[in-house]
Amino acid sequence: MKGFNVRFILPGSTKEAAVAGGTDLLSAAMKAGIVISASCGGEGLCGKCKVIIGQKKVLACETIVEHDLEVTIPRESLEIHEKGAAESEEFTKGVVLKRENAYPYFPLVTKVYLKLAAPTADDNVSDLDRICRELGKKVDSLHISTKLANVKFLSETLRDSDFEITVVLGYKEGGFSIIAVEPGDTTGRNYGFAFDIGTTTVVGQLIDLNSREILGTRIAFNKQASYGSDVITRIVFASAPEGLEKSHKAVTSNMNEMIDDLTGACGVNLGDIYAITCAGNMTMMHLLLKIDPSAIRKPPYIPTTTAFPAIHSSEAGIDANPKSLVSFLPGVGTYVGGDIVAGVLACGLFENDGLSLLIDIGTNGEIVLGNRDWMMGAAASAGPAFEGSGLSCGMKAVRGAIQKVDIDAGLNVKCDIIGGSKALGVCGSGYIDLLCQMLKRGIIDKAGKIDMNIKSSRARRGENVNEFVLAFKSETDAGKDIIITEDDIENLKRSKGAIYSAIISLLAKVGKDINEVAKIYIAGGFGNYLNIENAVSIGLLPDVKRGVYEFIGNSSLAGARMSLLSKEAFMVADGIAKSITYIDLSAEPTYMDEYVASLFFPHTNLRRFPSVRS
Amino acid sequence: MKGFNVRFILPGSTKEAAVAGGTDLLSAAMKAGIVISASCGGEGLCGKCKVIIGQKKVLACETIVEHDLEVTIPRESLEIHEKGAAESEEFTKGVVLKRENAYPYFPLVTKVYLKLAAPTADDNVSDLDRICRELGKKVDSLHISTKLANVKFLSETLRDSDFEITVVLGYKEGGFSIIAVEPGDTTGRNYGFAFDIGTTTVVGQLIDLNSREILGTRIAFNKQASYGSDVITRIVFASAPEGLEKSHKAVTSNMNEMIDDLTGACGVNLGDIYAITCAGNMTMMHLLLKIDPSAIRKPPYIPTTTAFPAIHSSEAGIDANPKSLVSFLPGVGTYVGGDIVAGVLACGLFENDGLSLLIDIGTNGEIVLGNRDWMMGAAASAGPAFEGSGLSCGMKAVRGAIQKVDIDAGLNVKCDIIGGSKALGVCGSGYIDLLCQMLKRGIIDKAGKIDMNIKSSRARRGENVNEFVLAFKSETDAGKDIIITEDDIENLKRSKGAIYSAIISLLAKVGKDINEVAKIYIAGGFGNYLNIENAVSIGLLPDVKRGVYEFIGNSSLAGARMSLLSKEAFMVADGIAKSITYIDLSAEPTYMDEYVASLFFPHTNLRRFPSVRS
Repeated sequence: MKGFNVRFILPGSTKEAAVAGGTDLLSAAMKAGIVISASCGGEGLCGKCKVIIGQKKVLACETIVEHDLEVTIPRESLEIHEKGAAESEEFTKGVVLKRENAYPYFPLVTKVYLKLAAPTADDNVSDLDRICRELGKKVDSLHISTKLANVKFLSETLRDSDFEITVVLGYKEGGFSIIAVEPGDTTGRNYGFAFDIGTTTVVGQLIDLNSREILGTRIAFNKQASYGSDVITRIVFASAPEGLEKSHKAVTSNMNEMIDDLTGACGVNLGDIYAITCAGNMTMMHLLLKIDPSAIRKPPYIPTTTAFPAIHSSEAGIDANPKSLVSFLPGVGTYVGGDIVAGVLACGLFENDGLSLLIDIGTNGEIVLGNRDWMMGAAASAGPAFEGSGLSCGMKAVRGAIQKVDIDAGLNVKCDIIGGSKALGVCGSGYIDLLCQMLKRGIIDKAGKIDMNIKSSRARRGENVNEFVLAFKSETDAGKDIIITEDDIENLKRSKGAIYSAIISLLAKVGKDINEVAKIYIAGGFGNYLNIENAVSIGLLPDVKRGVYEFIGNSSLAGARMSLLSKEAFMVADGIAKSITYIDLSAEPTYMDEYVASLFFPHTNLRRFPSVRS
Repeated sequence: MKGFNVRFILPGSTKEAAVAGGTDLLSAAMKAGIVISASCGGEGLCGKCKVIIGQKKVLACETIVEHDLEVTIPRESLEIHEKGAAESEEFTKGVVLKRENAYPYFPLVTKVYLKLAAPTADDNVSDLDRICRELGKKVDSLHISTKLANVKFLSETLRDSDFEITVVLGYKEGGFSIIAVEPGDTTGRNYGFAFDIGTTTVVGQLIDLNSREILGTRIAFNKQASYGSDVITRIVFASAPEGLEKSHKAVTSNMNEMIDDLTGACGVNLGDIYAITCAGNMTMMHLLLKIDPSAIRKPPYIPTTTAFPAIHSSEAGIDANPKSLVSFLPGVGTYVGGDIVAGVLACGLFENDGLSLLIDIGTNGEIVLGNRDWMMGAAASAGPAFEGSGLSCGMKAVRGAIQKVDIDAGLNVKCDIIGGSKALGVCGSGYIDLLCQMLKRGIIDKAGKIDMNIKSSRARRGENVNEFVLAFKSETDAGKDIIITEDDIENLKRSKGAIYSAIISLLAKVGKDINEVAKIYIAGGFGNYLNIENAVSIGLLPDVKRGVYEFIGNSSLAGARMSLLSKEAFMVADGIAKSITYIDLSAEPTYMDEYVASLFFPHTNLRRFPSVRS
């Protein structure tokens, strides 16, 4: 096979790539780390990938490298990003870690190297038939189809590569499609991304689809946050002119930063990213895909669809190989989305004999109750407090976040900080510990009011409300005192109340008692640590035997990753989505009473929290 | 349902359309008879459908009509065509006419009107699920899928139309996809086109998919003709820089003229054209779809693919609803294409008990021999003479063409002209009669040379060669004498020789004699008339019992039409393509000898033509 050198002249810099003959310029540019605009997915339709060879403008997607080339890329043909996501630790815990490889390894995008016999007069089937005939020997599949774009230059690609090619197969609608054909053997390079698209937090992971290794994780606040902190305000924003476009761009910008950052850090070419899976709630999926979400927030609260067709990354403005396949975990209903289905897949609740509960603590607190025979799902508007958003000193569970808090009898505060450096702020698990310790030391009362009579300079009057200082400016890297205010406490109290009352209401709906539940999985973006005992103490979680609880970390991301690595897992997720019954708790007459009753630490009815009372 | 008025301001004119709320501007423009560029198929990807509302540029495909509007369409957003196709009569004859409705009526694109119950708190499935649930009651189907583009505005379309919609279903890869959702009941308007894309001739038919009526037929010489008259020269041209693009544009321009002309003449809106089927030879399909055809003409003669994925019309630059589905009859091998598969479908050869032969007389003369158990296909390079191309006074079988010729003993020429008007030229069936009569009257000898000693001023010396006058200028509308030259006769002799020798060689290959053949179907663009007796007399067709022969007209077009109107017929065509074995006659040692022996009228070996000899 012939190899050629392509030199790309960019505004202000120059990059090079060595590529096999028959490679198109879009792929060659990706290999040089350059993202050329190609909104149509490199199908020769959008005309955005214009580059200049000599004096002549050509489309990069339709131009094949057949000799050494110098290609000028005009500024308007380049994709441009800003930076922002933070490095993060791996989130998977407990049973999810064990289930990680529960399904047969078969990534949603698979590369197959074929060394084909050259055609002869006696073996004169078409090029595509030759490929499919050989593929048939290597892949058991329901059907193999392809798009026109993958056929146009097939003849040249095959002949320039001496009939040694790599076929990129994407799993879609129950079968395989040929999504690309690359010259030579490129099977060694096959990468994918798993995304958890939360209302408040977006997490992305770069995965080596060959070794199944997680190469890196990034976490960022969803940039849509500036358009509202919960899904309702986001929908209102998206319903206004250009709101949908802005919302879409905000979250894809989150994703693209992570992709850019992680591929850069790991030395992976964008052109080798062929598979992306996304798990997110229904509103996030609508906004990501620019589907009008208006009907979600108006009675009777209807999403346009709960299952989203797989698309090319370029259709959603996501940077990867333009022919890559983006798949979405299907959801259940308006407020139980693909993130929760991913969570059920990850923890295996749907296979349990005993009654089980999955509680995902996010901007919406979602709950799934059930076992192998039935499942019910519900949601409560918890707000982003436990994700570290909307609080004076809140932050994500990344380096610099206070994740554990202890307060001794002398009211000295001891903090454990992620990464071991000086504190920048407090993450969700830190707030749970902090509330628990403040209650224990009498710093706050059951209503969440700070006792200004305690003997400590930490309790003080802030600008408008009373506040408590965890760490003074000199001890931190925050450039200010790290505090918690009565407003923050109120915010956290409402969050924990919403989640707790949703759990109890859903149980009541099916006539079950919390003590009948054999297993409770706690999911959420708490990093590596969540103190269940403390979460019970503040009334966030029901007061049952502690052995019932298991903290499983970010199960949405885990489910997306499992699906990325196993088409069978992806199919199982589809079955899970179909078997969960969605319950609208706001229509339950007892829910509001339950909520109001839970707006105390731990609860107005202490009999519900016997271990806390004692 | 609310209706709104959209006024389109074009460069130099104004058009209006009344549309239902929820209609996108691309469809609204189509309703007003305006074709806006949308190469991506209205998926919001290509950005070509820019229109101006007020001062603001928006994409027509992403803009929904919600009130009366005035929309300015800039010149660069418009598709522009030239004119040229001629009206034609219907071509189907004999058994094909009987088989026209042999398969269950189920067009490749079907519209289903749904009056959906509005969602309630108790019936809160997603919009798409609501549609699919109702569709499931009305359509038996393998699977229903949809693309993202059809989901984006679904919520608005449903609510603006009070949940009364028409779902447009397209048949593709063995199942149905939702290709569009229209507000209100539009089932009364569903139209399609069937195309026969020949090397020399392109024929298009507008079909009412509800009534199955043929609304009109147009025929034109393939504009690629200026890039070569046979597939080899076309491939050479297409292999040069920009040649492929030019070849593609030439044939789509043919198609678009016919679409424009027929929809205009029949008062059909382009936006109501959702289905197109094309039958054509392998090279024509490669050029139409911009697939590099180079390997077809180099040993061992390999096409990129013999089966072509269904596409949106916009992907190939064909004017119709941008979401319409264009399907292609699959082919067998390099020189037996989808046109021949369509022909086998149309005449039913593949179901015959007795040995049967299909002979399609076109630029390539293709032959299929076989029965219900086996089929073999082969081709010979006949050239376009019998299509009326490449001859001094040749023309298509349309109004003004001499289709029958009689010459009496006094050498007076009597012509029958299509449409009954004065002659413009001679079509294929006219040339067959003419050659036969000239032989009979001794005007030409067996080698095709004109006897200059005959007593008629019709035989004369032309510019370079001898010629014979059929009709003098004053008798015609041609503005010149209508003649046949010795060069024309040589051309026709080679054509008939290529076809006859291919028939005999294929029979020899399988050890069969021509007299064992129970049925011979003759297909080709001869209009309504072909004199089999005369065709045998000149040695174009073998000298067997005349009752064996049946003239079936343009069977490629008929097969395309049958597939358009029946998904089952389309599936049967797929099976036919797979069961024909392709034979490369050029590799047969006897073929060249047979060809040379047939370069006489009727043949060097008169024992092969006993009825002619007598």
